[in-house]
Amino acid sequence: MISRRDMLRRAARLGGYAAGFLSLQALGFLPTHAAADAPQLPASLGQGRRVVVLGAGISGLVAAYRLERAGFDVVLLEARDRVGGRNWTIRDGSRIEQLGQPDQVARLSPGLYFNAGPARIPSHHQGLLGYCRELGVPLEVEVNSSRSARLQSDGAFGARPIEQRQAVTDLRGGLSELLAKAVGRGSLDQELSAADKERLVSFLRGYGDLAPDLVYRGSERAGYVRTPGAADQTGIARPPLALRDLLGDPALPNILFEDNVLMQATMLEPVGGMDQIPRALAAALRRPPRLGAEVRAIRQSHGGVEVAWRDRTSGAGAVERGDFVVVTLPLKILAQIPTDLPAPVRKAVAAAVYDHAAKVAFDAPRFWEAEQIYGGLSFPDGGTGVVWYPSSGFHSPRGLLVAAYLAGPPAAAFEARPLGEQAGLARAAVERLHPGHGADLANPVVVDWSRQAFNLGPWMHWETDGNDAAAYRLLNQPQGRIYLSGAHLSQLPSWQEGAVAAAHRTVGLIAERVRAEPSAAR
Amino acid sequence: MISRRDMLRRAARLGGYAAGFLSLQALGFLPTHAAADAPQLPASLGQGRRVVVLGAGISGLVAAYRLERAGFDVVLLEARDRVGGRNWTIRDGSRIEQLGQPDQVARLSPGLYFNAGPARIPSHHQGLLGYCRELGVPLEVEVNSSRSARLQSDGAFGARPIEQRQAVTDLRGGLSELLAKAVGRGSLDQELSAADKERLVSFLRGYGDLAPDLVYRGSERAGYVRTPGAADQTGIARPPLALRDLLGDPALPNILFEDNVLMQATMLEPVGGMDQIPRALAAALRRPPRLGAEVRAIRQSHGGVEVAWRDRTSGAGAVERGDFVVVTLPLKILAQIPTDLPAPVRKAVAAAVYDHAAKVAFDAPRFWEAEQIYGGLSFPDGGTGVVWYPSSGFHSPRGLLVAAYLAGPPAAAFEARPLGEQAGLARAAVERLHPGHGADLANPVVVDWSRQAFNLGPWMHWETDGNDAAAYRLLNQPQGRIYLSGAHLSQLPSWQEGAVAAAHRTVGLIAERVRAEPSAAR
Repeated sequence: MISRRDMLRRAARLGGYAAGFLSLQALGFLPTHAAADAPQLPASLGQGRRVVVLGAGISGLVAAYRLERAGFDVVLLEARDRVGGRNWTIRDGSRIEQLGQPDQVARLSPGLYFNAGPARIPSHHQGLLGYCRELGVPLEVEVNSSRSARLQSDGAFGARPIEQRQAVTDLRGGLSELLAKAVGRGSLDQELSAADKERLVSFLRGYGDLAPDLVYRGSERAGYVRTPGAADQTGIARPPLALRDLLGDPALPNILFEDNVLMQATMLEPVGGMDQIPRALAAALRRPPRLGAEVRAIRQSHGGVEVAWRDRTSGAGAVERGDFVVVTLPLKILAQIPTDLPAPVRKAVAAAVYDHAAKVAFDAPRFWEAEQIYGGLSFPDGGTGVVWYPSSGFHSPRGLLVAAYLAGPPAAAFEARPLGEQAGLARAAVERLHPGHGADLANPVVVDWSRQAFNLGPWMHWETDGNDAAAYRLLNQPQGRIYLSGAHLSQLPSWQEGAVAAAHRTVGLIAERVRAEPSAAR
Repeated sequence: MISRRDMLRRAARLGGYAAGFLSLQALGFLPTHAAADAPQLPASLGQGRRVVVLGAGISGLVAAYRLERAGFDVVLLEARDRVGGRNWTIRDGSRIEQLGQPDQVARLSPGLYFNAGPARIPSHHQGLLGYCRELGVPLEVEVNSSRSARLQSDGAFGARPIEQRQAVTDLRGGLSELLAKAVGRGSLDQELSAADKERLVSFLRGYGDLAPDLVYRGSERAGYVRTPGAADQTGIARPPLALRDLLGDPALPNILFEDNVLMQATMLEPVGGMDQIPRALAAALRRPPRLGAEVRAIRQSHGGVEVAWRDRTSGAGAVERGDFVVVTLPLKILAQIPTDLPAPVRKAVAAAVYDHAAKVAFDAPRFWEAEQIYGGLSFPDGGTGVVWYPSSGFHSPRGLLVAAYLAGPPAAAFEARPLGEQAGLARAAVERLHPGHGADLANPVVVDWSRQAFNLGPWMHWETDGNDAAAYRLLNQPQGRIYLSGAHLSQLPSWQEGAVAAAHRTVGLIAERVRAEPSAAR
């Protein structure tokens, strides 16, 4: 399982190399189809059976949608007054309630929105993208990597930001020069034949943009100090950054962010906000989700399940009954709800340790576009994670700038601060990258996921943070008529695709069971 | 000057390293502002003066727009029945006339269009982007690089296409492993201190995704043979491609395309077609361009200029008079027009050698999106250049696929073929990349730029193809009242930004002259 925290912290390496690949070698050339393909079920399969689904995040919505289409009668309960769960798009007027903090009301210019939860979709997340296709959710490109975006370290290059094109280019030039030298000195003769060496050095010339003498002396790829223009105005490339200085810059590994398989171009986003996906799913349900319905107890018997819930507006209690219940609630929420799950399961639920994550956004004039930045991420020093520029609405007067996005222990410390301090740190990060522009930022919106009442954390990683992989396996098994589901029970706990995959699996398990059970045996 | 042909052929290295950078070193950190900044001129500067501008491509439109805003009376003549010049967006019903070939009428599904000329804008082309901002031309991201797009060589990997994420990742893994070995063997001890070596090797672990023993054994960055899914469905990374095989693949250098400073993310495109830019410029002119006006002669005297032209519809002749004439016509067109330019200038014009370029597009179902390709370029073997996927309209039923785009001598040979053969070769390129899908392509549109009557070629490179850099300098000088302008007289002859830069310079030269001349001396 991939730790989002690690991605945010360092952007680089993704776990080890999966074993046992040799038998799969023949498959290796072209893309595999989505692991998350929806089970193909007859439209009458669930006839006469009722499923209660808890939580209208992506997994709950997908489960409800698929079960309805397979003929089940589905009731979907959601505690919030909106669908989507962590998929949450904040617009002008949105209220942000956080535990232990004063409420915020977002004040955003017309057309601006803030994807406080997920905000990008890799092109290989075909489960989620399949729903966008099926339900007609328009997509646009999300720019995850811009060569004009910046790196900034207080302890490198006089604390000045450098463009990513400089880091990427000058690093590669320096490394290519070193490797060409090593080859020339014969130090890799064990590994390389004479023909290999010739090919390699020839390739390195272009790869590193080396001079004919195989020395790297800079490249137009790193950008210009004078751009090419009219008549005799030739372009003049920037002087190169020294390899030693680059390697000494703690921000350097951030250039690997774009290589992460989950972050590689092309990345996508729904036009108008990530919540277009849950809205489209909800609109496609025959029975709309019941909002404001807070679950109070989950019980099962030989004959069925019973979910007690409370209407958060009226305070009235109610009970839903069904043949099965699909519980997509975050484990920290489920842990607070009385259930008759077996003791080891309850223990596993209670033991779950969630990560931390926070995002801070501002409404701002698009000063970054005058600096040739159109989308993408900059990586400032200071511990508040990335600065993330909008991928659409180019050249409009104002944009939504995500000025801080962090996870892991730094996020835990960040979330502990008052809102004003969080906004101040985010503003300082922007000032580091864009001197003089920190003051341009208006109307901060702070979202601390551990302070969201119906989440209590953004996601969890089963292999770290004191979590238990055995608990993961246990919770992935049906408990009588109770099916736990959700991204936290997938290999992609911090991605919507994980929610889709988990929901598809859960629906598949219920379908199997229904097929195996003669109808009379209910 | 940068050869577009070289970019298309090999995608990699951009000329040498500009000399004399040391004095500019202090400037090197942040982006330089556009070389193409418009001259700031008082609105009354040109009062009582008239300028005839020839050619309503980007340079002619920009010159006319700026001159009008500086108070000049401007007449803009354009031979075609549209503005834009090489900036040409073909839609359903567009007629494509080519010299020596039967006419084509484009048949494209609703919403599809084909940018037959320029189709992307680098984020540092702030001259052109400034007009998009000023005139409200909406922009969206153009995907120049997708890790899901492919490389294919008939002689490598059994002619099977590989995803670019495989080539990029496995190459870097292999190179990082080699360099780490060389460092470990001490072969770079002249260059690297012990501390340098430690930093370098530590960085290479992440850069190449090396195993703890510094060997590259594959990476999730290269994609999966099994994607991460629900429950116990862990992701399984592809087996790595061998470095030797990668280096032996003639398609490999195409992964450097995205590093070209003119091709680096973020790239942009106008929503709805590149011609939104010339349309907006034309709409902003006080006097609309005169379309269908073919220039027949350009004369000047002490007192002014005279341009004879012919109405292509009625056949009627006419004359425009002015104080100055700005000639943005391609040199191959200008060479055919009688002028009283001095003999060395006429000789320089007549000697210009243009490049070749061709594009072939099809209307097709978006099969590539099912293969996780959302925009970007694939590089097939077979000599027809890139295959270019649409960057917008994702998940709509059909898309405009640029199935061939080539320049240089291969384009000259390609353009010499009958239309059907050109389309057939383009279809075969798609079949190489997407076996079984060549047959999905419908309604080819072929644009051969050397066969366009008012261009006779796409662009020219002054430092190659037998052109003469001295001629470039000569043609960049005003000849009496005649000012030659256009991208061909800039350092970016194959980019719209070059047209903007040239137009700005020309307007600046005219302004200087007007300022120097007392009004009475006209």
